[in-house]
Amino acid sequence: MRKVSLFCTKCGKAFPVDSSNFRCDICNEPLELELVTKGKIREGNILRQSILERYADFFPFKDLNEDISLHEGFTPLIKSKVVSELLDFKSIYFKNEGENPTWAYKDRGTIVALQHALKLGYNKVGTVSCGNMAVSVAAYGSRAGLKTFIFLKENMPDEKLGPVAIYNPISVKVQGFYGDLYDKSLEIGKKNDIYFLNSDIPFRVEGSKTISFEICEQLDFAVPDYIVMPSGSGGNFRGVEKGFRELKNCGLIDKIPKIICVQAAGCSPVYNAFKNNEETIKRVQEAETIALAIANPFPPSGNQVLRRLKENGGTCVAVADELIVEAQRLLALEGIFVQPSSAAPLAAIKKLKEENYLTGNEKIACILTAGGLKVPSALAKHKFQTYDCELENLDQFIKTNFLN
Amino acid sequence: MRKVSLFCTKCGKAFPVDSSNFRCDICNEPLELELVTKGKIREGNILRQSILERYADFFPFKDLNEDISLHEGFTPLIKSKVVSELLDFKSIYFKNEGENPTWAYKDRGTIVALQHALKLGYNKVGTVSCGNMAVSVAAYGSRAGLKTFIFLKENMPDEKLGPVAIYNPISVKVQGFYGDLYDKSLEIGKKNDIYFLNSDIPFRVEGSKTISFEICEQLDFAVPDYIVMPSGSGGNFRGVEKGFRELKNCGLIDKIPKIICVQAAGCSPVYNAFKNNEETIKRVQEAETIALAIANPFPPSGNQVLRRLKENGGTCVAVADELIVEAQRLLALEGIFVQPSSAAPLAAIKKLKEENYLTGNEKIACILTAGGLKVPSALAKHKFQTYDCELENLDQFIKTNFLN
Repeated sequence: MRKVSLFCTKCGKAFPVDSSNFRCDICNEPLELELVTKGKIREGNILRQSILERYADFFPFKDLNEDISLHEGFTPLIKSKVVSELLDFKSIYFKNEGENPTWAYKDRGTIVALQHALKLGYNKVGTVSCGNMAVSVAAYGSRAGLKTFIFLKENMPDEKLGPVAIYNPISVKVQGFYGDLYDKSLEIGKKNDIYFLNSDIPFRVEGSKTISFEICEQLDFAVPDYIVMPSGSGGNFRGVEKGFRELKNCGLIDKIPKIICVQAAGCSPVYNAFKNNEETIKRVQEAETIALAIANPFPPSGNQVLRRLKENGGTCVAVADELIVEAQRLLALEGIFVQPSSAAPLAAIKKLKEENYLTGNEKIACILTAGGLKVPSALAKHKFQTYDCELENLDQFIKTNFLN
Repeated sequence: MRKVSLFCTKCGKAFPVDSSNFRCDICNEPLELELVTKGKIREGNILRQSILERYADFFPFKDLNEDISLHEGFTPLIKSKVVSELLDFKSIYFKNEGENPTWAYKDRGTIVALQHALKLGYNKVGTVSCGNMAVSVAAYGSRAGLKTFIFLKENMPDEKLGPVAIYNPISVKVQGFYGDLYDKSLEIGKKNDIYFLNSDIPFRVEGSKTISFEICEQLDFAVPDYIVMPSGSGGNFRGVEKGFRELKNCGLIDKIPKIICVQAAGCSPVYNAFKNNEETIKRVQEAETIALAIANPFPPSGNQVLRRLKENGGTCVAVADELIVEAQRLLALEGIFVQPSSAAPLAAIKKLKEENYLTGNEKIACILTAGGLKVPSALAKHKFQTYDCELENLDQFIKTNFLN
């Protein structure tokens, strides 16, 4: 690894990068790799490249372990056609992270953090998650031949267990307060040499940077005015925001987009603090939302999101479940089926236009973090019309009812 | 469109390409576009390109409608690490079609056939499917602003309906013999100006060619010895096989891989005919397999698959459901979760090695046609071990049971 340092995002204390320090021993705030200030994107045929290789200048690794890659990232940026017309926007783009190997953006952070874990000599990894991160870590952990621990909620429904368990990790349902499991897992990891790839660890944040790198490439470096993205733990927000800053530092773009951080109204600790201009988040007592993937009552990177948001000049929005479900349907009309949390950004865009925060003339990139098949239960929130017809009457039925 | 012709795959009768003729009026065998003999791959940054643009020389279109693209294709080719070691193979590659916009290879054919439909001035499209094709056509039909008809089986389970209906097509459950619906839909289409994007229509076959183009690019034009792929209707097989022939004609590759066509033992009309050296397939009376996506009792391109398979020198294999389920698990260990039909090729590879048809020294590319979340019910076929533990005992529990 190149000589870089980890710094506490709050007090600035430095930590060596060749350790698995994830949080500051003084503030308990998240650590982060120092900003890259010199680098370029390595050209090449993406069909034969990995994100680690293409964006190598932005990571401190040498001698990548490419074998364990599933070719994560390089997801499409789709120009809106249906939605922008319906909501009267000039230019909305959707970054479709549902086209990743495990159908969520998490794979980017997993592959980058795994490189770090392997460099440090770990042969055991783990995570705390009931959703996309559990799936991603289980998949890559198996591929890499690592003993993989997944700590789950005790009442994890079968709908969500199967897609994790199919990769054969050690799945442990943990009884007790799930909110305490994040810190506990890092503690267990330290003691037992297990690298816990939790939601906002430094190298997972580094993986999320590649979303920004790709958006810039896809827009030919004509940066959008706004990035709209959902935020739970805050790790992905931090990565995306850092990615743009690094590209600007490297002279590849000339401005940084404002970021709109979207939470579900039923669990919005970051929004609550942002709205009240507070510097630290408060734990939400009861989370109730369909957008489970971002329903983190006490986001481990919440304070850092607040700090970066203030600097960035963006805003934070909370959207109700009805709006999220409506946005999920709107996105499907666009041809893109996403999970509820990934529909939250579009719900926010609609809301912010109604509130005249957005005019419709902005260039907006919306990050759709995961595919719709991840949360099939959300389909029950929609009313679907179907018709019944006998084969021999089909021609007439179609003519009479649908062709005038 | 360029001046090319459609030909009957059996009798060779020519049809104009600017019509929606899909089958020969003499043989009722499928039509196909004439072979491309001159062309090259257009270089460029794939992040800003579509398959239609990159492989434009291999399609007869001018003035593409890029707006309706969801950036289908450009899926990863992953070198096997876990499976090849377990099964003692030197080099197996997995083409992961689960990373398409609707998580199946169908999107390639849908976008190409839609270009054709739009050129011909159609504003209504449809398909006959209960699975991946229905989803794909519904998604793209909505995006393109076309009235979209999906003809479904009468007993379509809700698990499969929601992921189609979310895109808001006109969904009709048709009572009667589903096997007759294919021809009936083409008839209804002709009469009512609806372009039916069924499984093996000529331009859908053209879309499947891009799988071969990408595999060749990904292997730096060092072609594999074998392509192993599942086959239901036969449309995808035809496209993949044609793609390699065209690249050879264009001087881009120096040999054509042998193709191993894989069916489920519970529904294997092509295998039955191939094994008995017959020239036409016979309808299977009762289809019973977990691999529903390839359970076509009377494949509309079955005879053409037999013709091409004989010429190609490949073979046809039928695999039992137990082997398919086992292969699904093996692929998950590799980090790739696929639907049952997509695990059938790996089941075949294992079987063919046991039968000494394959030695383990071959270079093999295996086409994984769709992602595992498409068929969540298949997860019930697997036994998953989970553990329960209280939060305060977690550290000790992990130590005692998993760390020695």
